[in-house]
Amino acid sequence: MVDLLQRTADLVAVASVSLDEARLADLVEAELRGIDGLRVDRVGDNVIARTDLGRPIRLVLAGHLDTVPANDNAVPRIDGDTLWGVGSADMKGGLAVMLTLAHEVPAPAVDLTWVFYTGEEIASTHNGLGHLFRDRPDLVAGDVALLGEPTDGAIEAGCQGSMRIAITLAGRRAHTARPWMGRNAIHRAGRLLSALEGYEARRPVLDGCEFRESVEAVAIEGGVAGNVVPDVVVITVNVRFAPDRSAEQAEADLRALCSDVLEPDDEWKVVDVASAAPPSLDHPVLAGLRDRGGLEVRAKLGWTDVARFAAAGIPAANFGPGDPTLAHTPEERVERRSLDTTYRALFDLLTDGVGP
Amino acid sequence: MVDLLQRTADLVAVASVSLDEARLADLVEAELRGIDGLRVDRVGDNVIARTDLGRPIRLVLAGHLDTVPANDNAVPRIDGDTLWGVGSADMKGGLAVMLTLAHEVPAPAVDLTWVFYTGEEIASTHNGLGHLFRDRPDLVAGDVALLGEPTDGAIEAGCQGSMRIAITLAGRRAHTARPWMGRNAIHRAGRLLSALEGYEARRPVLDGCEFRESVEAVAIEGGVAGNVVPDVVVITVNVRFAPDRSAEQAEADLRALCSDVLEPDDEWKVVDVASAAPPSLDHPVLAGLRDRGGLEVRAKLGWTDVARFAAAGIPAANFGPGDPTLAHTPEERVERRSLDTTYRALFDLLTDGVGP
Repeated sequence: MVDLLQRTADLVAVASVSLDEARLADLVEAELRGIDGLRVDRVGDNVIARTDLGRPIRLVLAGHLDTVPANDNAVPRIDGDTLWGVGSADMKGGLAVMLTLAHEVPAPAVDLTWVFYTGEEIASTHNGLGHLFRDRPDLVAGDVALLGEPTDGAIEAGCQGSMRIAITLAGRRAHTARPWMGRNAIHRAGRLLSALEGYEARRPVLDGCEFRESVEAVAIEGGVAGNVVPDVVVITVNVRFAPDRSAEQAEADLRALCSDVLEPDDEWKVVDVASAAPPSLDHPVLAGLRDRGGLEVRAKLGWTDVARFAAAGIPAANFGPGDPTLAHTPEERVERRSLDTTYRALFDLLTDGVGP
Repeated sequence: MVDLLQRTADLVAVASVSLDEARLADLVEAELRGIDGLRVDRVGDNVIARTDLGRPIRLVLAGHLDTVPANDNAVPRIDGDTLWGVGSADMKGGLAVMLTLAHEVPAPAVDLTWVFYTGEEIASTHNGLGHLFRDRPDLVAGDVALLGEPTDGAIEAGCQGSMRIAITLAGRRAHTARPWMGRNAIHRAGRLLSALEGYEARRPVLDGCEFRESVEAVAIEGGVAGNVVPDVVVITVNVRFAPDRSAEQAEADLRALCSDVLEPDDEWKVVDVASAAPPSLDHPVLAGLRDRGGLEVRAKLGWTDVARFAAAGIPAANFGPGDPTLAHTPEERVERRSLDTTYRALFDLLTDGVGP
């Protein structure tokens, strides 16, 4: 069997910080072109490889090429059965598993589309998977998808949506020596923040996965000068909502929570919205992956690119090696056991097909 | 009698925005040097002129030469008995009264020190009166002082102190998808701001003047990124305190108000302090001014340079022509009546002495 730890180390050794993925894309493209039966396309530095075996189901397996900048951990280091280095968990371990499977399973039970894409770790506008869905949806079409983000070998199903709302509370300026001539907008924020602090978030269970919503003020800014009663304060709230609710419903709930404070002159602006993705564990491929390996299933609380698949009507889940809580830290690492069990579960899925 | 409205217009016509007072200082210096019996000193662009008649009391009459930048009102305009223009109220009307009195009362009942100083409208570090108290206290020494700031002919007695305190509330960062791993510092600000909003400020009456304290948040800032539970928020609070309390007492009261919220890891920093000045209406010169003219007396709620005199042990009050609420606005103006009544009250004080 392939030494997946060494394979991952070789990928970590090829730096691929966001916006600088060309060298790694070149290597991945060359390797995929060397495999019989794959049709390979390149769009920018995104690389897509597809089987065309006429199977009734097409499974898309996707992973991002880029990493965050190194934290004094640019050089891979293997110590026993552990590989240390930037991207080892997020997600070059997943890329190593994907590339190895592309070699080892030449005649899969389902048609496969391998997607290696750019710009996942930075602003959404740079996301290569987003670009492909916009410009070449034919290349990323499929019936079901798996994203190789680190989940430590569990299935992290669907993902929560995320929305940011900027709430501007109005006041009236005055000199602080005569504050009764004005109205302090920053003081008004007190009740609103207390409402957020006291909020009990929903924890719905969907397809056996407990989601956990949240409502958090992520920024506040106000103030005119050291001797002026401020006439404005802006509070930015990040709402994370489970996939059983739309963004509109989540927004309406936040508005209700703030209703005691809001007045006609205040402003309410949705800054950005990323929709949620349902767990979709009723899909036979995802159910098969879960049941065959007896895999742990849990909700994905953060937002990931599975939501891009869900938005295109493609059920999707996160499944990959590595501890997600170590991603982006100087202690990022991946264990051989995590790589091997992830590989084995996917190998069984691809060779045996969708049935348990 | 001198046309004080025209005299003020002539002074408005000489631009003297803060840090650019030299031309006006030259004119004032030349005029004072032309008056017999005055000893004139110049320190930078500050001009000081003193009588030396051996009177038992020395009265300091002080006014600042500088103005804020013009608001499309650099050119003086007389319309009937009203003069429009930057500095007409704050405080070239007062300067006109002072210069006219220096001519008209050559043998005052008290010794006089006229102080024309720079840099009052900008940061305290530029304040010419402050420079004189630091470098030439002999030139500004006296028994009692009047500051010609616009009070519309009332006596604004003493002034409130002002203090700014930056309160840093601590939290713990986390991803907003897992907020229970952290603690939201911005949410913690809710209870503190609500305490400020609900605070009932003291309104002590001193020497018949009602002061009115205030506690106002003047700035708030917090936030790390749109998906991060913030670990810090800084609230800057401006406290205005009456002259019956020290800055230390006012600070202790604010701390008590915040005590339910503050924790050991939070920070508390006094950013700046300007002490208060007592009304001092028991001083015979100030009492004489009030009683002779039947002048309205009220507390000065803002901070003014009378506090610099008070800090030097010199009782002081604000007394000058012009509506203070029009200062620094495009509608700044002064009325002939206000100039004349102020002039008359001071003329009577200087010629009749301190008795009623």
